[in-house]
Amino acid sequence: MSLKTTAPQGDETILADSSNSQLARRFQQVRERSKLITQPLTPEDCVIQSMPDVSPMRWHLAHTSWFFETFLLSSNTDYQPFNERFEYLFNSYYNTVGQQFPRHQRGLLSRPGLSEIMDYRSHVDANVHRWLTSQGLSADELKVLEIGLQHEQQHQELMLTDIKHILACNPLFPAYQLPNEQPAAVASSADLQWRSFPSELTEFGYAGDDFAFDNERPRHKAYLHEFQLATRCVTNGEYLEFMLDDGYRRPELWLSLGWSAANQAAWSGPLYWIERDGQWHEFTLEGLRPLRLEEPVCHVSYFEADAFARWSGCRLPTEFEWERGSDNKSLNTAGVFFDHLLQAKQPIHPQTETSPPTHLMGNVWQWTSSSYAAYPGYQAEAGALGEYNGKFMCNQYVLRGGSCATSSDHIRPTYRNFFPPDARWQFSGIRLAR
Amino acid sequence: MSLKTTAPQGDETILADSSNSQLARRFQQVRERSKLITQPLTPEDCVIQSMPDVSPMRWHLAHTSWFFETFLLSSNTDYQPFNERFEYLFNSYYNTVGQQFPRHQRGLLSRPGLSEIMDYRSHVDANVHRWLTSQGLSADELKVLEIGLQHEQQHQELMLTDIKHILACNPLFPAYQLPNEQPAAVASSADLQWRSFPSELTEFGYAGDDFAFDNERPRHKAYLHEFQLATRCVTNGEYLEFMLDDGYRRPELWLSLGWSAANQAAWSGPLYWIERDGQWHEFTLEGLRPLRLEEPVCHVSYFEADAFARWSGCRLPTEFEWERGSDNKSLNTAGVFFDHLLQAKQPIHPQTETSPPTHLMGNVWQWTSSSYAAYPGYQAEAGALGEYNGKFMCNQYVLRGGSCATSSDHIRPTYRNFFPPDARWQFSGIRLAR
Amino acid sequence: MSLKTTAPQGDETILADSSNSQLARRFQQVRERSKLITQPLTPEDCVIQSMPDVSPMRWHLAHTSWFFETFLLSSNTDYQPFNERFEYLFNSYYNTVGQQFPRHQRGLLSRPGLSEIMDYRSHVDANVHRWLTSQGLSADELKVLEIGLQHEQQHQELMLTDIKHILACNPLFPAYQLPNEQPAAVASSADLQWRSFPSELTEFGYAGDDFAFDNERPRHKAYLHEFQLATRCVTNGEYLEFMLDDGYRRPELWLSLGWSAANQAAWSGPLYWIERDGQWHEFTLEGLRPLRLEEPVCHVSYFEADAFARWSGCRLPTEFEWERGSDNKSLNTAGVFFDHLLQAKQPIHPQTETSPPTHLMGNVWQWTSSSYAAYPGYQAEAGALGEYNGKFMCNQYVLRGGSCATSSDHIRPTYRNFFPPDARWQFSGIRLAR
Amino acid sequence: MSLKTTAPQGDETILADSSNSQLARRFQQVRERSKLITQPLTPEDCVIQSMPDVSPMRWHLAHTSWFFETFLLSSNTDYQPFNERFEYLFNSYYNTVGQQFPRHQRGLLSRPGLSEIMDYRSHVDANVHRWLTSQGLSADELKVLEIGLQHEQQHQELMLTDIKHILACNPLFPAYQLPNEQPAAVASSADLQWRSFPSELTEFGYAGDDFAFDNERPRHKAYLHEFQLATRCVTNGEYLEFMLDDGYRRPELWLSLGWSAANQAAWSGPLYWIERDGQWHEFTLEGLRPLRLEEPVCHVSYFEADAFARWSGCRLPTEFEWERGSDNKSLNTAGVFFDHLLQAKQPIHPQTETSPPTHLMGNVWQWTSSSYAAYPGYQAEAGALGEYNGKFMCNQYVLRGGSCATSSDHIRPTYRNFFPPDARWQFSGIRLAR
Repeated sequence: MSLKTTAPQGDETILADSSNSQLARRFQQVRERSKLITQPLTPEDCVIQSMPDVSPMRWHLAHTSWFFETFLLSSNTDYQPFNERFEYLFNSYYNTVGQQFPRHQRGLLSRPGLSEIMDYRSHVDANVHRWLTSQGLSADELKVLEIGLQHEQQHQELMLTDIKHILACNPLFPAYQLPNEQPAAVASSADLQWRSFPSELTEFGYAGDDFAFDNERPRHKAYLHEFQLATRCVTNGEYLEFMLDDGYRRPELWLSLGWSAANQAAWSGPLYWIERDGQWHEFTLEGLRPLRLEEPVCHVSYFEADAFARWSGCRLPTEFEWERGSDNKSLNTAGVFFDHLLQAKQPIHPQTETSPPTHLMGNVWQWTSSSYAAYPGYQAEAGALGEYNGKFMCNQYVLRGGSCATSSDHIRPTYRNFFPPDARWQFSGIRLAR
Repeated sequence: MSLKTTAPQGDETILADSSNSQLARRFQQVRERSKLITQPLTPEDCVIQSMPDVSPMRWHLAHTSWFFETFLLSSNTDYQPFNERFEYLFNSYYNTVGQQFPRHQRGLLSRPGLSEIMDYRSHVDANVHRWLTSQGLSADELKVLEIGLQHEQQHQELMLTDIKHILACNPLFPAYQLPNEQPAAVASSADLQWRSFPSELTEFGYAGDDFAFDNERPRHKAYLHEFQLATRCVTNGEYLEFMLDDGYRRPELWLSLGWSAANQAAWSGPLYWIERDGQWHEFTLEGLRPLRLEEPVCHVSYFEADAFARWSGCRLPTEFEWERGSDNKSLNTAGVFFDHLLQAKQPIHPQTETSPPTHLMGNVWQWTSSSYAAYPGYQAEAGALGEYNGKFMCNQYVLRGGSCATSSDHIRPTYRNFFPPDARWQFSGIRLAR
Repeated sequence: MSLKTTAPQGDETILADSSNSQLARRFQQVRERSKLITQPLTPEDCVIQSMPDVSPMRWHLAHTSWFFETFLLSSNTDYQPFNERFEYLFNSYYNTVGQQFPRHQRGLLSRPGLSEIMDYRSHVDANVHRWLTSQGLSADELKVLEIGLQHEQQHQELMLTDIKHILACNPLFPAYQLPNEQPAAVASSADLQWRSFPSELTEFGYAGDDFAFDNERPRHKAYLHEFQLATRCVTNGEYLEFMLDDGYRRPELWLSLGWSAANQAAWSGPLYWIERDGQWHEFTLEGLRPLRLEEPVCHVSYFEADAFARWSGCRLPTEFEWERGSDNKSLNTAGVFFDHLLQAKQPIHPQTETSPPTHLMGNVWQWTSSSYAAYPGYQAEAGALGEYNGKFMCNQYVLRGGSCATSSDHIRPTYRNFFPPDARWQFSGIRLAR
Repeated sequence: MSLKTTAPQGDETILADSSNSQLARRFQQVRERSKLITQPLTPEDCVIQSMPDVSPMRWHLAHTSWFFETFLLSSNTDYQPFNERFEYLFNSYYNTVGQQFPRHQRGLLSRPGLSEIMDYRSHVDANVHRWLTSQGLSADELKVLEIGLQHEQQHQELMLTDIKHILACNPLFPAYQLPNEQPAAVASSADLQWRSFPSELTEFGYAGDDFAFDNERPRHKAYLHEFQLATRCVTNGEYLEFMLDDGYRRPELWLSLGWSAANQAAWSGPLYWIERDGQWHEFTLEGLRPLRLEEPVCHVSYFEADAFARWSGCRLPTEFEWERGSDNKSLNTAGVFFDHLLQAKQPIHPQTETSPPTHLMGNVWQWTSSSYAAYPGYQAEAGALGEYNGKFMCNQYVLRGGSCATSSDHIRPTYRNFFPPDARWQFSGIRLAR
């Protein structure tokens, strides 16, 4: 695990000592958290797919189990699948494994119901636990287990962003979490400052021996020109200025595709911003509430991030500039992550970045100007797991840093998230460069 | 009530004696039946909208309550709405009442959940009961109550056809009803015979004083040319012959629009027919099972009914010919309806028409060649209820007779159902004329 | 020929005496007129297909020749086709003949060019003339010749409406005809009066021995209830009142499908009406010019005609009521037709209906409330020509009377034109009934 | 001008000595060539837009004139526009200039016709000549003139690729050029060899003072890892092997978006490949003819190029690797360009790459794996011309080298062409790296 800098708790030693009981505990922790996420939800909530990119909670809960079943358990000839039809039903996009139930129709299924899916999870859990305790585990198998856990953590973030999108479609604006009774005292956001970095030939990508995705490798040299990186992300208040300055009506600020996307979808502000009686509100996991200007802006597309940057006379950083920023001691502090908020019973929502210190990571994913592409010498994993990353390296842009919906033991500075430039339902924000 | 011919039980006297307690009992019976329909379903099942024409069970249960609330209760100034946002959420298409939540997005809502909707129903029921016992009820109000009950019965049929469509999307093919353990002994279908009718100037439309929809009125004269009507509906076996004779690949058998529709949607048989290992199966409310050749063919569009008729050298009857057929003593027997099947714990599915006697009504709706249009002198209801029928009189075709999903005290020979010519998810079949 | 009432010139005796030279002259006249229509156009104009319903002029000129080649000449084994690929290229919708080049892609073809198509026409003309003079012509063949001529006259009307649509797409608003230098003195439109008709059982459909389309047959009895028919069509001024009274913003005036169509396409007035600097203009074949309030309204859909009628407290006539109107001496006068305007060098545009006398026919096609359906006992023509009419009898509405773009020797009171209810590019207007 | 390496004729000195008469001659040459390209075409050919990405020849001829009128002539207060509506009609995408006639509707216009557009060209030419001879020309104005000429040369390539697409839609497969009567003796393609390049930190982008587009600047450092580049492009024969090895049916070879694109559009080979009677043919500007296996494969998308590369165990080069290749003496020879073919009266089609020597440039554009993005320090041109390149830097991939439809005095090694990854109608081929 790569988490020394961001999550210096005991977890990162688990694979180091390979103790099966620690592994089993970690497995259980991750699996439990998925159930925890669905706890505030009704069975009805867990059926809905509000757009093709969103998956029903039912499906997330089942697919993450399918992953362990398919890549870990099914090679064991003794293993009895819970239901043989699930191989087809809960395959996401692994052509190597077989055909898939059409993605955009996931919301048409009500069966298996939530409770049967929970039984499916238990069945898989019990089998993984049995496997963990009874076998001489190979390094390859342990790696698959680790990928399965990382995979589930990715889906945990998607569950949060998907349920937010699902609830936001409802004109009743139901809350996922109960609103905090006493709102946090309003903190001012920090002044935006700049950190300077010189030109240099340096290295990028994951360097350690622990787990990292194939797309973070190999560590390789690249040349950076001098640049400056902002010490905090753009706030709602700053973004509102852009809007009030006709930001959504001036084509010269936009990429051509962005201008089309914004007009076709009639964007006039970030996703989840709603104007009511002359005041801006924001739909959050706590329901609809007045916009807080000091918080980091969130749920903007790459197109909007790029237009905002052009309007402000700056630009977005490349993913290498961003990664270089993580070496700067004044930036690279631990950020706000999902597990922290969960533990503190805080809302799953970006926190105001007050001064000092500043966060490079956490809170909101940060769009970079880098198209998602293979590093020089990139090798996809062998077999079906090779479909995990490489085949998506086209027409997507890299985001860095993790968000308030990311687990702290899942993220690292070299982590590359990626979404198409019009995606807005992730906790995606803006850090400027120049 | 108009049901003397089809359901000669005690119910038809309710409005005649206007006894409030009888009315209250009828109200309760109809309302109970909606809940009965959802009994075999899970909360998850009740969320899904499998195509724009289908509505979630949640929505049916709420909308039928909304109808009484909006048209009956809301004029009472004392009435406290259950939730003021429901006026918008559960309005179907009444522009006069106000804006509507978009129809094709009904499947995006999980809240109010099933149990809250049941509370909503109870709230409405209690208020209607109070209203029924405490007031001098005007004829107008009683008429609205009656329309509300008829409306709910229509939605009961839609609930059955919608849930069939929803479950059929699931590759697990879940059953709505438990399959009968011992399948009915296979009965042969009756021979198809013809009944002849002479040319004559005669009357059509509803003649009585009881309830009938505005579109069945006024009773009016029309001239019929001599014709013959088949004594039973077309069977699965006969339809299969059409398919085996390349019926779906011969454009000369089809209307031009039908040919386009069939090709675009790649129809190769009725909706719910599935070929597996060389044998035809049919998805039913009892799940997937081998096709029974002797049963009436069902879930065909107008286009398919018309093409089949052309292939067989016959044609579809006009709605007037069909209605004329109901005067023929040898045809007009009571048919197979939803409440009969429910009481007999039989599957909600068309029954084989054995000989004698023959049914004109029940089992499957029968496509006629008549475009849905106003009768001479037609007057829509006043106010919002005028939106019930008239505004749909375009590009739809009339079906007659009711189906195995229709309540027997809802149907009558003059009843005009209507659907676009490509609709297939109703229990719609074929009776030939020539 | 059926034209005794509407065009009492010598033409109608042609088939009676069967003189080949007269037939040849008529053939030549009709064929010449198609070329005359394209005379004001450039080769570039003749390529464009502005929407799927419109065909390029190139295509009309070729397809009408293809018709004679396919149905008349090709049975002669001596006949040398001009180009064998044309069978495929210029087949419209005759599945019996073979596959067709996709209709919506007709505008993607530039070859054969206009001059090669004119050569194709000459080739076909020469062969038809040879056939006419050298053979003992059978009644069947003469009928095909007649259908071919009627078919070409239908396409002549389409050529005019299609080129109007094509030129209207151009922001330069080019004129097809030179505008008349001195505009006609503005005539007032006649007062709208009503003619009454009693209830009666009477006959409809074509009764004569001359040519009529299969869809006008057989002559058959039907019962009409008493009604009144307006003595003239609705004017632009009257239609403008409907618009100013929010006609396009009041759903209660519209059919449900019409309301959707109007909103989706953002209709706010008839096709070709354009507001500029606060004044309504109309694009005509003479270019863009200020709207003339006294002229008949034109280029409205069935949906708009129906909404206008509802707004005015009246309704549209059925096609039988309309046809019954043609027996009324005060209505059934000859109207304004294409050939009359051509001869008088008048613009191809509806003329103001001044008083007296009134026109039932000509000027604008009149939407009826009748869905296009088969008459009792209808028999389609045998063979490929059976695809001419019958297969379109679905989701279309009947228009009666002919327009300023119809040839007077092509139309008759029993003539049934038909278009989908959202079609607007024909010269279609409104006559009220009540 | 940047053309020392590729086109060492006298032209490149034009701007150096700034002699107006030389400039005038170059202007005339470029403008003449556009007319030359349309010479084999009919007016009908010049109207058609066969897909949204294609523009009618009419439009290209007018838009390239509009460019000079708008950016050069219109600032002169004496200038009389040819037609004021043309500013709107022939603006492509310059929001700064004003609104644009919708791009996808360019094929709906027949007026102004071809001859009027030629008059428009003459009007603009005469005014540019007058301007060239009568004024003290500023460096800024000369730059705009140069951009206008480069712009017209880009459109000349588009005219060739667009008319190829247009003619290919016609089932008659008309030829743009007469086929060469004696086909070139079949030459074998060279063996594919590899050239090796070491890791190094080096410079990329345009270094000279002559014209280059803003997207080629600034010259900047970047680090390259060692790689090898193929000495010639992939041939039709090699691509056919990929197809026969089920290349289009194996998802593991494809990017995820590519797999979707290929399936949705049912790709089974390069655009313009057609199988007839068991033999592969190719539509060329000379019409349809049997495929020549030794020629470079052409009209493949980025998706297909990428899948082929994966299948072959190689990969596509980055644009930097490609540009580095141009420094290698054994690769960087002059290639096959449009003007060479025109002069030699050869077909506009890629030529077989025989051995030795090899071409890096010309023949076919070569897809690189580089997403089209700004170079570090990129500055878009000021004003409307800033819309030329920068706003398209999203979801496009860079192609390098020019094609048989590119003018040799328009291309250079640093030239960056760009198209979306599914574009196939350009002369785009494949050079492998590893």
